[in-house]
Amino acid sequence: MARIDELNKVLRALQSGTPDIEASALISEDGLIIASALPQHIEEVRVAGMSSTLLSLGMRAATELGRGSIEQVMIRGETGYALMVTAAPGTLLLVLATKAARLGLIFLDVGRTVELIKKIL
Amino acid sequence: MARIDELNKVLRALQSGTPDIEASALISEDGLIIASALPQHIEEVRVAGMSSTLLSLGMRAATELGRGSIEQVMIRGETGYALMVTAAPGTLLLVLATKAARLGLIFLDVGRTVELIKKIL
Repeated sequence: MARIDELNKVLRALQSGTPDIEASALISEDGLIIASALPQHIEEVRVAGMSSTLLSLGMRAATELGRGSIEQVMIRGETGYALMVTAAPGTLLLVLATKAARLGLIFLDVGRTVELIKKIL
Repeated sequence: MARIDELNKVLRALQSGTPDIEASALISEDGLIIASALPQHIEEVRVAGMSSTLLSLGMRAATELGRGSIEQVMIRGETGYALMVTAAPGTLLLVLATKAARLGLIFLDVGRTVELIKKIL
């Protein structure tokens, strides 16, 4: 199986295993989509660019605030969560979850998905 | 008691009640410190500017990603957490916690502190 197909499969499995996860995408550090399972109304290019900008600003903030090298940026909005985690070197995993999501469970599943991604890339 | 003194008291109480919280600051939307309980090695002006930039970028990302209006940005680094939450209108509360922190407890205490801040401002 091509690596892209394997990555897409891993993302789909993450979403089907946790119904509160609505969307996910693997994005390169420079803001390009590598694999994705995003709903149609979300504009991939903008989302990818924004996620990589947020992670890189988060990286500077983490260092500046003495929190060490960055592992995750989480945004909580009124209607849900957006999670950006560092995946294989040079990549980040973006996950969108509903407000009803159990954060502990999401962190666990996302962590496992990151391990799978590291094996594929 | 002057409002600034009240705010400083609330921030000190947050930190003394939860030992894993190392520092906190109330920052205006435009990146100026209103009250703070930050360690000396942290450069207030830079930290305040960076926090407000992160929250405003988070705000755009939350809208773009369909997560509604922003409530919180959390950064997890290798050695701890940085949390930025919207407090009274036009302000944000920055909280730095160690890696050992129980996130559930931190969210609870920070939420209560935000309520106190809203009453003061």
